[in-house]
Amino acid sequence: MHRQKNSPGALTELSLIRQIRSASLRTPQPRAGARNLVLGIGDDCAILRPPPNHELLVTTDLSLEDRHFRRDLHPPESVGHRALARGLSDLAAMGARPLAAFLSLALPAEMLRTRAGRAWIKRFFAGLQALARLSGAPLAGGDTSESPCDLILADIVLVGSAPAGRALRRSTARPGDLLYVTGSLGGSAAELAAMQAHPSENHPARTVVNNTAHPHLYPHPRLPVGQALLRRRLANAAIDLSDGLSTDLAHLCRESRVGAQIDATALPLHPLAARAARPLDLALHGGEDYELLFAAPAATRVPRTIAGVPIARIGAIVRGSAITLIDSAGRNHPLKPGGWEHFTKKH
Amino acid sequence: MHRQKNSPGALTELSLIRQIRSASLRTPQPRAGARNLVLGIGDDCAILRPPPNHELLVTTDLSLEDRHFRRDLHPPESVGHRALARGLSDLAAMGARPLAAFLSLALPAEMLRTRAGRAWIKRFFAGLQALARLSGAPLAGGDTSESPCDLILADIVLVGSAPAGRALRRSTARPGDLLYVTGSLGGSAAELAAMQAHPSENHPARTVVNNTAHPHLYPHPRLPVGQALLRRRLANAAIDLSDGLSTDLAHLCRESRVGAQIDATALPLHPLAARAARPLDLALHGGEDYELLFAAPAATRVPRTIAGVPIARIGAIVRGSAITLIDSAGRNHPLKPGGWEHFTKKH
Repeated sequence: MHRQKNSPGALTELSLIRQIRSASLRTPQPRAGARNLVLGIGDDCAILRPPPNHELLVTTDLSLEDRHFRRDLHPPESVGHRALARGLSDLAAMGARPLAAFLSLALPAEMLRTRAGRAWIKRFFAGLQALARLSGAPLAGGDTSESPCDLILADIVLVGSAPAGRALRRSTARPGDLLYVTGSLGGSAAELAAMQAHPSENHPARTVVNNTAHPHLYPHPRLPVGQALLRRRLANAAIDLSDGLSTDLAHLCRESRVGAQIDATALPLHPLAARAARPLDLALHGGEDYELLFAAPAATRVPRTIAGVPIARIGAIVRGSAITLIDSAGRNHPLKPGGWEHFTKKH
Repeated sequence: MHRQKNSPGALTELSLIRQIRSASLRTPQPRAGARNLVLGIGDDCAILRPPPNHELLVTTDLSLEDRHFRRDLHPPESVGHRALARGLSDLAAMGARPLAAFLSLALPAEMLRTRAGRAWIKRFFAGLQALARLSGAPLAGGDTSESPCDLILADIVLVGSAPAGRALRRSTARPGDLLYVTGSLGGSAAELAAMQAHPSENHPARTVVNNTAHPHLYPHPRLPVGQALLRRRLANAAIDLSDGLSTDLAHLCRESRVGAQIDATALPLHPLAARAARPLDLALHGGEDYELLFAAPAATRVPRTIAGVPIARIGAIVRGSAITLIDSAGRNHPLKPGGWEHFTKKH
């Protein structure tokens, strides 16, 4: 972890690093993390000891103010939670177990100087650490800097492991596979729309999370489901739903060189989406549900729940490259990737 | 690697990702990299296979416009080179070998739309890839986003490996050890000062680097030296000189719970520093030389050059916590950490 040069913010920045370090040390490391994390914050690098015969999985995810969150809309706990959740969901999609998380964080100098700013930072770490604890992903290092603009800038790195050669990929779906999703869809976009409609409301700053009630603020990465899919050899391919079903399904199909058919009536709607004006749009195109989409051979008996999470069959992989939506009247429509504009910029 | 939601920049952003991906595929992967990188850009995570009985080392380093570089001062090749060099130097300090690099990059939307912006990005990647090739650190993934301000924001992650239990640390120096540095000091600060004095000059946009001529623009991380120190068991402790000798020595002493004595006349001055107004200040406090500082037992025969790089003995580790500078007249002075303000902000 680099210390900043002797700028006006240097002292407060050092104290920020100390805060991160002590927060990290306070994280009760689950047995797995303790075994695998040899050296955490404080040296030039962190040292990880991967389990024997395992491969390492690495993913990085930016969480930038006004692109991925809004300070006036998201409670700081949610910003910390969501930053970590993005990377954990990538690990979940490949069936991996987290080993450690790293955070590069740039904060406006003004935040380090004011009581309100320091309170925000503390709450951000509380949200991040709560999910880190829940997921067995100890915060093992990173970098800090003063932000060059008045925005909070974060990059989260997750390192995980999976038995060698066994990680689930998005490029290995085959024609004839059936398509499944975990949990429910559209909840994140529905909650966000409600937040934007009532921006002055107080949104929950909870560190114990419940993604049924708050799918946007506190999504649950599906780590146990992904690990079960890998362990029980249930899936041919998987991807996480970060950009929305229509977009992420297109990624899976393109990488696997296949097409797909989706049954609109089979999509599991989140209760918040079901009550919204256009539920199907939210389920198809609303991003950030952080559920898993996976393809399993037709002969595989996929349970109705895995690790306590409902599993819904929503369609099938087909030859070719066309992605088709079958509506409730049995009509076919081409399903185009249609992401979701999460929020407009303040500036 | 996440794709952005359907914002106005989505199409150009996808083409940026394609550019990164193809640049990454073009990187001739040295035998080591090819063996260890199982899956690069394109899935939810990259997959690395660490060598048997090795530990993993992970470091992240922010490179933010107006904090770590200036677009009007640094050629884009240098920005890419320096971003990667920061992480490689952390690996070098611990004696590690790079396995893969990851880049999270946020670019102003305007850069993706203009020819000049796209040229900048291309040259940035050329600089980064040239050093990646030289160092055996293939670009294996990352994230992209539109920048929420008009500044370029980058975070570089380096993953390396070292034989289990053997990585060099900064916390294991012992009283009686002698202190050594690689190469020469003060060059980066001297070159930067010259650049700031003549900002309109054209600075070299070279991808084949020469850190003797351009220690600030194109520093050479000391990977072969660090690996030799580890392999030949020459050092008790090591740290890289990113923040300046006085600051990084203080880190090493604090983490090792020791003090140190430095002989001012023994400091190897970079030619650019030697010609500057206050050479000793540059050598002591000028950061970003990316040389290594290491402690070796007095009985160890440390060669005059390691991997072709000159090694200078500059002092010794002592009991206590005092860090002392001995000047040319033999007088003792307390040596305080005095970092270096690299450049003032534009805004």
